[in-house]
Amino acid sequence: MTSFRFEIIHSSTKSRARVGRIHTPHGVIDTPNFVAVGTNGSIKALDNAMVDSIGLQLMFCNTYHLLLQPGADVIREAGGLHRFINRKMPIITDSGGFQVFSLAYGSVADELKSRGTKKADGHVLKISEEGVCFRSYRDGAKVLLTPESSILAQKAFGADIIIPFDELPPYHIGQGRLKSSLERTHRWEKRSLDQHLKQPNGQAIYAVIHGGIDPELRRQSCEFLTALPFDGFAIGGSVGKNKAEMVEMLETTMPRLPRDRPNHLLGIGDIDSLNAGLPLGIDTFDSSYPTRAARHGLLFTSKGNIKADRNEWARHFRPIEDGCTCWTCQRFSLAYLQHLFKARELTAYALATIHNLHFMVDLMRRVRQSIMQDDL
Amino acid sequence: MTSFRFEIIHSSTKSRARVGRIHTPHGVIDTPNFVAVGTNGSIKALDNAMVDSIGLQLMFCNTYHLLLQPGADVIREAGGLHRFINRKMPIITDSGGFQVFSLAYGSVADELKSRGTKKADGHVLKISEEGVCFRSYRDGAKVLLTPESSILAQKAFGADIIIPFDELPPYHIGQGRLKSSLERTHRWEKRSLDQHLKQPNGQAIYAVIHGGIDPELRRQSCEFLTALPFDGFAIGGSVGKNKAEMVEMLETTMPRLPRDRPNHLLGIGDIDSLNAGLPLGIDTFDSSYPTRAARHGLLFTSKGNIKADRNEWARHFRPIEDGCTCWTCQRFSLAYLQHLFKARELTAYALATIHNLHFMVDLMRRVRQSIMQDDL
Repeated sequence: MTSFRFEIIHSSTKSRARVGRIHTPHGVIDTPNFVAVGTNGSIKALDNAMVDSIGLQLMFCNTYHLLLQPGADVIREAGGLHRFINRKMPIITDSGGFQVFSLAYGSVADELKSRGTKKADGHVLKISEEGVCFRSYRDGAKVLLTPESSILAQKAFGADIIIPFDELPPYHIGQGRLKSSLERTHRWEKRSLDQHLKQPNGQAIYAVIHGGIDPELRRQSCEFLTALPFDGFAIGGSVGKNKAEMVEMLETTMPRLPRDRPNHLLGIGDIDSLNAGLPLGIDTFDSSYPTRAARHGLLFTSKGNIKADRNEWARHFRPIEDGCTCWTCQRFSLAYLQHLFKARELTAYALATIHNLHFMVDLMRRVRQSIMQDDL
Repeated sequence: MTSFRFEIIHSSTKSRARVGRIHTPHGVIDTPNFVAVGTNGSIKALDNAMVDSIGLQLMFCNTYHLLLQPGADVIREAGGLHRFINRKMPIITDSGGFQVFSLAYGSVADELKSRGTKKADGHVLKISEEGVCFRSYRDGAKVLLTPESSILAQKAFGADIIIPFDELPPYHIGQGRLKSSLERTHRWEKRSLDQHLKQPNGQAIYAVIHGGIDPELRRQSCEFLTALPFDGFAIGGSVGKNKAEMVEMLETTMPRLPRDRPNHLLGIGDIDSLNAGLPLGIDTFDSSYPTRAARHGLLFTSKGNIKADRNEWARHFRPIEDGCTCWTCQRFSLAYLQHLFKARELTAYALATIHNLHFMVDLMRRVRQSIMQDDL
């Protein structure tokens, strides 16, 4: 089994951007790269043989969902997540913290849309120093998620990269509460790391840098977590209510991460954010946006996004984009796709998802080329 | 372009069953065979490259739906239905009659479930000797469907086998009305044939035998339609409220069809009906049941159907059926499929559909073998 290793191939002379290779037990992840989200062990509408064939090098699965369905025991007995879902290439899992706290606090978007600064506590029963107790949305069973239990679940799953348990504080939070949340997150991440190191299993563990949009807290988080033997660093927590705040936060955080270890931006994947994040040295980033957009008929092209169901495509008997080498564009016209979306055929979701995923994989290949040529 | 030709390879010595080959412009259909339904030019959840690779030799598309979306002009401009949907193998289209009259009268099932003996007229505006005028459920436009316009649409689509326009009378209908409906259907089918013969285009046209469950009317329908130069014969109309009625009807009808031309049983595809119909000499039959069942998590196996989402499969880390050579069984376990159904992942619908479709294709291959060995 290849052990985890990060290799920098080229560092840009013009920015912090770099091209690298993350070696994992299930193969290489070329960086910078896009990470698609397959919450339940499935990129929605695609099977994992197709996903592998598109060349998606890293897939993000959610521990919270997999814990509740099918459960860690089933996946362990299957021989791990790769075998259970039949994925040959690398997988990253999160800790479940993000989802369980989203239930408790709502997402930043929920807050900003004034759906209330705090959601009803949903199914979260108790948050304590030990961890979070919540009710399963599947069967109502009480589940206790702690740094230790999250890591043990992620050991059962066997993803190539795992993530320590953290608290996701709400965007609107006082300075005092943000600071104490950060301190608890740091204690939880340390406990996660300790649990991981008892049985590393060839897995890598990335710390999650927190601190919201407070530069001083981000600095403290970098200082605390980079002093620990994490294999890489994810940037999490609230990354701001708009791109300007996110960029400011990244400008504080990125220079404080060790250059010799890979980093990951959690949950951000729109093209604008990419363009902002890549020169700051982001190695990988995950987002459900390209695949969710596909299911809503928003197709990515080099000339911008297009809406598949518009009448102007009814007679476009050519691919979504000429020259595109994806399964969809090699076989089907945009006119047929328009028809499938208009007729609400399930096949539309698969064909559009294949295209957008291929687009992202190909875009990142070109980004790496640009960095290699100091052109980014 | 291969012209349409039917070849009998072997006739059973024990029943009317026979093994044959229908040669069409898009290749051979081995008979007896199952015909999957791809209403809008798509077997739900699959793309047509996958459908071809499963070896489904004949696909049924619905003129009614394709007329309303994307419309005959779009498909003509695309170069025909095969090119529009990228299907390499044969296609059969119906006339639109079945759907438009289902709107007006409701289906047999609707009637039998006492949802009323007659539905509200839906969007049907007028039924006359000329044809049926109805409103498009897409955009509210008035559409006139006549024998001539149905055939012209089917010419634009360019399916290998087309079907004349007919009236689908309700199951509960008086003898007098059934007889006058049959006479009109015969006049419409003759008009359809005349329209077809103006421009045969290498397409074959199958008459539709009507007469409901009245043996005398079925006989009359066979007599009238087999006297005309149709390339094959479909059995349509109401085929009864249960299997016994259907078998009785088939026993009247099948011996009255010319042995040298292929026949097709419309809209019937459950295994029991197959077992009843095949010894009577049915060559092809279409049904949406295997694919719809798949989307509801009902998986076909040689030991009977199983429900994919049952907890007993949660740890079944083997294929749906050992030895099955379908894409799904070669790659994924029933446990993973169970998980995908429980998690309501779109991927479940595709993987289950692939399996059931492969099952039907394989079942019919074995049926042909049995007939060849006089074992059916």
